[in-house]
Amino acid sequence: MARKFNFSAGPAALPEAVLAQAQEELLDWHGNGLSIMEMSHRSDEFVSVASQAEQDLRDLLSIPDNYKVLFLQGGATSQFSFLPLNLLGDRNSADYINTGVWSKKAIAEAQRYCQVNIAATTESERFFCAPEQAQLQLDPNAAYVHYTSNETIGGVEFDYIPQTGDVPLVVDMSSNILSSALDVSKFGVIYAGAQKNIGPAGLTVVIIRDDLLGKAQAMTPTMMNYAVHAKADSMNNTPPTFGWYLAGLVFQWLKQQGGVEAMAQTNARKASKLYAAIDSSDFYANPVALRNRSRMNVPFTLADAALDSVFLEESKAAGLLNLEGHRSVGGMRASIYNAVPEAAVDALVQFMAEFERRHG
Amino acid sequence: MARKFNFSAGPAALPEAVLAQAQEELLDWHGNGLSIMEMSHRSDEFVSVASQAEQDLRDLLSIPDNYKVLFLQGGATSQFSFLPLNLLGDRNSADYINTGVWSKKAIAEAQRYCQVNIAATTESERFFCAPEQAQLQLDPNAAYVHYTSNETIGGVEFDYIPQTGDVPLVVDMSSNILSSALDVSKFGVIYAGAQKNIGPAGLTVVIIRDDLLGKAQAMTPTMMNYAVHAKADSMNNTPPTFGWYLAGLVFQWLKQQGGVEAMAQTNARKASKLYAAIDSSDFYANPVALRNRSRMNVPFTLADAALDSVFLEESKAAGLLNLEGHRSVGGMRASIYNAVPEAAVDALVQFMAEFERRHG
Repeated sequence: MARKFNFSAGPAALPEAVLAQAQEELLDWHGNGLSIMEMSHRSDEFVSVASQAEQDLRDLLSIPDNYKVLFLQGGATSQFSFLPLNLLGDRNSADYINTGVWSKKAIAEAQRYCQVNIAATTESERFFCAPEQAQLQLDPNAAYVHYTSNETIGGVEFDYIPQTGDVPLVVDMSSNILSSALDVSKFGVIYAGAQKNIGPAGLTVVIIRDDLLGKAQAMTPTMMNYAVHAKADSMNNTPPTFGWYLAGLVFQWLKQQGGVEAMAQTNARKASKLYAAIDSSDFYANPVALRNRSRMNVPFTLADAALDSVFLEESKAAGLLNLEGHRSVGGMRASIYNAVPEAAVDALVQFMAEFERRHG
Repeated sequence: MARKFNFSAGPAALPEAVLAQAQEELLDWHGNGLSIMEMSHRSDEFVSVASQAEQDLRDLLSIPDNYKVLFLQGGATSQFSFLPLNLLGDRNSADYINTGVWSKKAIAEAQRYCQVNIAATTESERFFCAPEQAQLQLDPNAAYVHYTSNETIGGVEFDYIPQTGDVPLVVDMSSNILSSALDVSKFGVIYAGAQKNIGPAGLTVVIIRDDLLGKAQAMTPTMMNYAVHAKADSMNNTPPTFGWYLAGLVFQWLKQQGGVEAMAQTNARKASKLYAAIDSSDFYANPVALRNRSRMNVPFTLADAALDSVFLEESKAAGLLNLEGHRSVGGMRASIYNAVPEAAVDALVQFMAEFERRHG
């Protein structure tokens, strides 16, 4: 076995130590004679795994007691429907900030259920930045304000948490949750698909302030009702048990690394190295405003796009996997989530320099 | 490591050979240097795994070409909402057959969206049987007819496929799919949560006749629209990749066992042995009508309920896990899905005889 460096945007790299533990106990969890996957979600053993995962996440993000943590199915894309269905209450509009592909998807789904006010958009700037607080046109009567803290495809990350007064702030944090410390109390809802910084695909974590529960529209499918899941501790029906378990292992690994504060330092260093490599050369380029450059997803282009396929071929041969940019954008993208070691970034930077020397 | 016999109703036992293969390649899938869990769902490698899984399922159940196979999230419980939202079209009622806990849940959700005609119910018989064809009061104007082919909790299995004329037949087959051969062409929709006879929790397989696609109600959440998933080959958003992969391994394992016809023979033999053990003694009892006794879930009671906890304790000590009946029913339940080997049933039958000898 030779593990390679994996820059996939998601499903993405998992910590090798987590995979190794899952591998070791895959057929026999803690001497119980069966896999964690083969256990009833209501068994004492699984409930203890699930509760510990929640507690570890609460510890990592210092989640206040008045927030529920839900472990759901459906991906962040399903959340695009959950939000208006659960949060509109008797309001008929919501504010959305548009910073790229994922914001747009959230907006399109919300528009099916309510009036969407675009509080700000950076489309005219080709989504190469996030709007500043002063640019936000917020409606005090909006049911909530939604934004995408990190655009996985554009590589654009907010450098601040929007202030929205009394209007609940809702964030799609799929691609940068747990990458640094967070003041959860600023938010009404935080949601994240697991397959980037939490665990395998098929699990979605939702952190919701408890006063926002219980206002679902009458026709909300039961399984899309946050209050139903909150009341049942995410076990109204069978949850994705293996994903929940693996997320728990990731949370324990994060604690062992020193928590999100330590990850933030490593992530900052990894991103700095990669952006420095891009900026120090005319051969590579990244168009994002400095203050909004994502620490998680680093898209970059080659001066000569005809070399793209050569770059991908040679980087793969060098053990650097999944550097192809999103199909809607082209170029390259290196996703450097928590589980991508600094050595991977070092190897990529070195490869980029050598590639430029040979082809520049 | 000592694997034990696992009679869990779900999440349930998986074939040991499947778990062993998953374990071996968990950190490095086929020499690619990363886990199957760490791959983009749009990578050539994962797409080939996903397509092969679908093809193997099509082979196993001889699924006709005019049926789509979907690999979704949310569990069968989410399907309870999908069905009315997608199938009502311009009709305002659906027929449901009530045979127990799971039928009732499906009915309760459907009643939120349309008029539900109870085509038959065995509630007055305490759900100890399924209705016969002649008892079904079918409405020719219903949008569809829904039934539960196997009630996991009650241990009641239909011994025939209801005839519904031109009205599409919809079945929750979560707990007996792939347990025997099936004439898929009799159905409009077949759906099954994976965590019993297919794979791990967090995956739901839907087999749908293609003329039923494209009739979703206007307010259907995008991720609950069958047509959206069908058009995107279940990759409108990130699917539960690890579950899909494991399901594929189970399908390959089923083919190696000789397919569903061979499984049906083994399952019949396993069930016969267990029911014979129950019936040959006054110490054990099962209340279900002979023709409707489930081949997958075998509930049974002890003559003296005070011995229940002793039975559970001693069976667990003997390596026979998860025999506790559902919390709503009590008593015992042995779930003997495809992945539960005949040796497990033999061991249980032997244990039951010894237990009776000691405590009867």
